[in-house]
Amino acid sequence: MEQIAQHRCFGGRQLRYRHHSQTLNCAMPVSVFLPPQAETSAVPVLYWLSGLTCNDENFMQKAGAQQFATRYGVALVAADTSPRGEAVADAPDGSYDLGLGAGFYVNASQAPWSEHYQMESYISTELPELVSAHLPVDVNRCGLFGHSMGGHGALTLGLKYPQRFHSLSAFAPISSAMNCPWGEKALSQYLGPDRQQWQQADSCALLRQHGARAARILVDQGSDDDFLESQLKPALLQAAATASGADLTLRMQAGYDHSYFFIASFIEDHIRFHSEQLGER
Amino acid sequence: MEQIAQHRCFGGRQLRYRHHSQTLNCAMPVSVFLPPQAETSAVPVLYWLSGLTCNDENFMQKAGAQQFATRYGVALVAADTSPRGEAVADAPDGSYDLGLGAGFYVNASQAPWSEHYQMESYISTELPELVSAHLPVDVNRCGLFGHSMGGHGALTLGLKYPQRFHSLSAFAPISSAMNCPWGEKALSQYLGPDRQQWQQADSCALLRQHGARAARILVDQGSDDDFLESQLKPALLQAAATASGADLTLRMQAGYDHSYFFIASFIEDHIRFHSEQLGER
Repeated sequence: MEQIAQHRCFGGRQLRYRHHSQTLNCAMPVSVFLPPQAETSAVPVLYWLSGLTCNDENFMQKAGAQQFATRYGVALVAADTSPRGEAVADAPDGSYDLGLGAGFYVNASQAPWSEHYQMESYISTELPELVSAHLPVDVNRCGLFGHSMGGHGALTLGLKYPQRFHSLSAFAPISSAMNCPWGEKALSQYLGPDRQQWQQADSCALLRQHGARAARILVDQGSDDDFLESQLKPALLQAAATASGADLTLRMQAGYDHSYFFIASFIEDHIRFHSEQLGER
Repeated sequence: MEQIAQHRCFGGRQLRYRHHSQTLNCAMPVSVFLPPQAETSAVPVLYWLSGLTCNDENFMQKAGAQQFATRYGVALVAADTSPRGEAVADAPDGSYDLGLGAGFYVNASQAPWSEHYQMESYISTELPELVSAHLPVDVNRCGLFGHSMGGHGALTLGLKYPQRFHSLSAFAPISSAMNCPWGEKALSQYLGPDRQQWQQADSCALLRQHGARAARILVDQGSDDDFLESQLKPALLQAAATASGADLTLRMQAGYDHSYFFIASFIEDHIRFHSEQLGER
């Protein structure tokens, strides 16, 4: 963990690190906010997963989350959205929804992706172990949240790794990656043509499998989101939660779209939600 | 005023417009946040001036100001930092501190700049008249604030146009454009070699001239700002305020730097300050 930037922010520290990822076989950046409480004790930590085209910086610059991390005494860790570097495979046509910036938080099994695209292991294992080893965070109080592709990442990995992530929320998640154009394109490339394999990367399938035992889940979705009907499909998530008895709170936010202006408007609710969930452990 | 973007944000509306500026002789973007209170009545309006290399969007994306604009019921208007377009002169060497993105909020008298670089008139007259004509803002309750070059712009224009701008604050302003490398480079190009002409674009000179009659001024400055000693020189501002009897509150913020993480940390204080100043009118 080499520190490459530091800014004072809301009494805490906004940090950026670079590290070599063994899992991804490349150098990776990671952005961290440590609230003032972290100067004296280990604090709960919330991992943020971003959407298509983002890196580790968008959330820290645009979501306005730091003031609430200071208020509730939690650290924030924002990961990048794919492996990075010139050696890493990218979409041949340069499209934004495959390859760099579009890792979909899965472990790729197919060439050429499998050499670097192991985002599920990176987010669920390597990154939290690295963060816990180097920063003053409480490994027993870890939350996971994200937006769009990162909302899909948060839901899938939160459901699969409940020992790692103890609270779970999402903004405008891709509800069922198996059943939308973004997900079908990415999963067919990363996991191959056998749709049976895709079940392990589909929030609805995982919710049916694990929902009854899962922690409470908070999801916010803007009603004017351009991707609502074509890609995100929150009704599928609600149906899977109902079928499995999962404790899902899905809030449709009237007039909001897919942007960081939407995320910023409700980020305090999510940080408070995680803080309350983690405080009860 | 052609609307080119709209997002719901903190119960209000984040808007972007494009308009033809007669003053600047080019098309200009402007970003606006209208709080929910503006749906039913004219609200106070705060004009924001950004620093070098910024356009009208940085502040709206990174400062986290909208939640406080909603809380205090004020509109926000963020202007661009120079005239724009292929017809507009730029620094021959492409440097970031002259030409596009570096208008310094003055009316240029020298070729080739004078054809478009009339930012003082644009900010003090054309833009507020346009905003007041098209949006539900109260022309009798207008504040002005900004950052770095935009802090210089806010202080100079706020002191010169007290009938237009009724409250005034700045983050890390260039305190004396006549006495720092950024300002000397820009003013010599825009206003010519006669330093007597530069007095009208220097916050300290204007503070000495108008400070006793000016409204209260709030300035925040980070102590770890990389430009503190070389460019910003807040001690000059304090000395000019003391000499003129101006009501300046200069706060040195320990450990903060020149970034938007600094601005975001104190933006609520500034919006509350303006709201209180404007409420007393």
